[in-house]
Amino acid sequence: MIKLELDRKKRLIMVKEPSDVSSLQNGFYGQMKKGIIYLSPEEALYVMDIRNGKCYDDAGNPFTFNDIASLFLKNKKLLARCLTYKDWRDKGLVLRYISEAEGGYGRTVLKKYTSAPFRLDAFGFEGLFFPNDLITMVDDQTVGKELYERYWIGQFGTYKASHRGTVAKYDIYETIFLLKSGNLMLKGCNLATVEKVAKKRIKFFEDIYLVYEDWRSRGYVIKTGFKFGTHFRIYFPGASPVRSEDEWMHSKHVIHVFPRKHKQLISEWARAIRVAHSVKKTFILAIPGKKKEIKLSKTRSRLDFLLYHRKKGGIETPKDGSPKYLMYSLTEDEYIGGEELYEALAECKQFGLEMVVAISDRESSVTYYIIKELELPGSEYEYYEIEWVQP
Amino acid sequence: MIKLELDRKKRLIMVKEPSDVSSLQNGFYGQMKKGIIYLSPEEALYVMDIRNGKCYDDAGNPFTFNDIASLFLKNKKLLARCLTYKDWRDKGLVLRYISEAEGGYGRTVLKKYTSAPFRLDAFGFEGLFFPNDLITMVDDQTVGKELYERYWIGQFGTYKASHRGTVAKYDIYETIFLLKSGNLMLKGCNLATVEKVAKKRIKFFEDIYLVYEDWRSRGYVIKTGFKFGTHFRIYFPGASPVRSEDEWMHSKHVIHVFPRKHKQLISEWARAIRVAHSVKKTFILAIPGKKKEIKLSKTRSRLDFLLYHRKKGGIETPKDGSPKYLMYSLTEDEYIGGEELYEALAECKQFGLEMVVAISDRESSVTYYIIKELELPGSEYEYYEIEWVQP
Repeated sequence: MIKLELDRKKRLIMVKEPSDVSSLQNGFYGQMKKGIIYLSPEEALYVMDIRNGKCYDDAGNPFTFNDIASLFLKNKKLLARCLTYKDWRDKGLVLRYISEAEGGYGRTVLKKYTSAPFRLDAFGFEGLFFPNDLITMVDDQTVGKELYERYWIGQFGTYKASHRGTVAKYDIYETIFLLKSGNLMLKGCNLATVEKVAKKRIKFFEDIYLVYEDWRSRGYVIKTGFKFGTHFRIYFPGASPVRSEDEWMHSKHVIHVFPRKHKQLISEWARAIRVAHSVKKTFILAIPGKKKEIKLSKTRSRLDFLLYHRKKGGIETPKDGSPKYLMYSLTEDEYIGGEELYEALAECKQFGLEMVVAISDRESSVTYYIIKELELPGSEYEYYEIEWVQP
Repeated sequence: MIKLELDRKKRLIMVKEPSDVSSLQNGFYGQMKKGIIYLSPEEALYVMDIRNGKCYDDAGNPFTFNDIASLFLKNKKLLARCLTYKDWRDKGLVLRYISEAEGGYGRTVLKKYTSAPFRLDAFGFEGLFFPNDLITMVDDQTVGKELYERYWIGQFGTYKASHRGTVAKYDIYETIFLLKSGNLMLKGCNLATVEKVAKKRIKFFEDIYLVYEDWRSRGYVIKTGFKFGTHFRIYFPGASPVRSEDEWMHSKHVIHVFPRKHKQLISEWARAIRVAHSVKKTFILAIPGKKKEIKLSKTRSRLDFLLYHRKKGGIETPKDGSPKYLMYSLTEDEYIGGEELYEALAECKQFGLEMVVAISDRESSVTYYIIKELELPGSEYEYYEIEWVQP
């Protein structure tokens, strides 16, 4: 048993018994001041739940788990934090307060993607835009075939059988791209009309288009990610659809766009990552919009915990190692906003640590995703690889 | 070459050459009247694209694919229909106009699920509800353990390690269910407050809860489907969490709720089915709300095509077989509404055919889902199994 003492007025939870103090200190719990350990709500509740902690006030009245929890009921994300704290601890790993983060850890790896110049030949051709379907059809076979074979823009003929059929189809992103830089002209319709229709139909269309254009302009082939549950899939510069079906090129990366103004249920956000994982694709998260400086505040961080991980032959601790990640604690039924996530990621970057998103589902099972920044040379936007991990 | 003749005024496309007529007739294209075949826009565009059809008006002026398409530009879902029509044809299969559907085909199979009486013992216990996290914690170990072990309600202790820890956690659906029928009392909070918080946080919460309650009340264990990208996963009546981790029970069915008033991008709708498919679960679609009678209209069906499929040694045709499915044609960037889908499914049921949802993605690759009704005895709602197929 570990004895916890509650100061109700100050809402402080302390441990004073020397043997308990040293046991908690060895486990890297709490903050030590003059021989007394002060526990955060997450730590106190963990000790009560798992380490047989018993809590009393100074008059000796016992307090249950919920008695203590109810004192902190208004804390934002209290249970999200408790459950993810518990899960990390249950793995035998150590985690600490975010306020202890010092910065300059240099434990991030910036993956650099390639980039190639891209320029379309001036074609000058006509198409028919179908506003109900957001598709453009081009029946000029020469142009349709060349755009497909040389640039992999559009779908000439039949999917995976371009020799079958004579018409080329362009999706809404390709249509706008070709209107802007491919000399496409539409029957009875122009760029402004198409953009208007697209924006009306698809939420955050502009953001999604910016990402399309960003990768296209750097030489990537960027096509629908429908089969993989994402906005796009990409092929590295130089990819071509012209080959036999046996040697069909497989995309290895998918891109999903998370606009800054979008707020999404965590369960929906995670679903897209799950599909990509199940088909063994690298999931790239795009947060379009200009980069901005984020102010760090030690007392009001957007993040939840400073995570120590494993090292050869043991675990990292505050005593003999440095933290590896910053944890962003969430529950399945919460919302996450693009802006919020962007700011939290920018904060991680300044600390020199990667972000671990920890999501506790409705059964308190925790799923972890590591988010690593990637660099697309020349791009103004932020991109991240997200990987599902079991820490 | 097949020669098509266009009557611009009436927007009719005809084939008159006897050899072309008999070729199209053998392929089950168009409607024959007095030796002339009349083609629908989808058929005409298919013949032009794939079967080397050339179109002229009565003055002998040639018309390209887009010239013809532009005559029907205002048709709803024209390209969705064209692309799914084409894909079915490209598989060597036959499809016809929905207006030819006669009904009474009796080609549906109603899968009957089991159902068991369910009654909770009267417990009477107290919990603490966390509005920010939508979770209730109960620190009464006896009740928490019993509810978990006997009914698999809540999570006692740790996920997949219930002996670890002393607190039970209830998600928002379990919380409301226990408030309504398990004598749960909450500290400083009641059913009305919890429902208000849940509705404010989660869109269509009431619909999702109705589905939870429906399956729970029929003896099913119903837990979060977070890991499978859906609202819920279920276990059949009699399932228990009490076993060693090696023999952990695996759920084989997931449930996703599609409220009637919800309108969703097809790509998002399909994403949930994909995750379930990738983890080899049966995907159950729930459309809560009372059943209603749907009026059939031959001229304005909600569906798109009457599908003939394969049979032993060949294919079904209007000549020597009956249709197997009704096709609902969509594109990736369209929206689908719960009500719309419900009505289309009810229509299929009246025809005695199952629905095939055909989704053309932005590259004109078509994905097919078969939707089959299932019966949950005693339930007032409609449930369907959705299966990804390659016809």
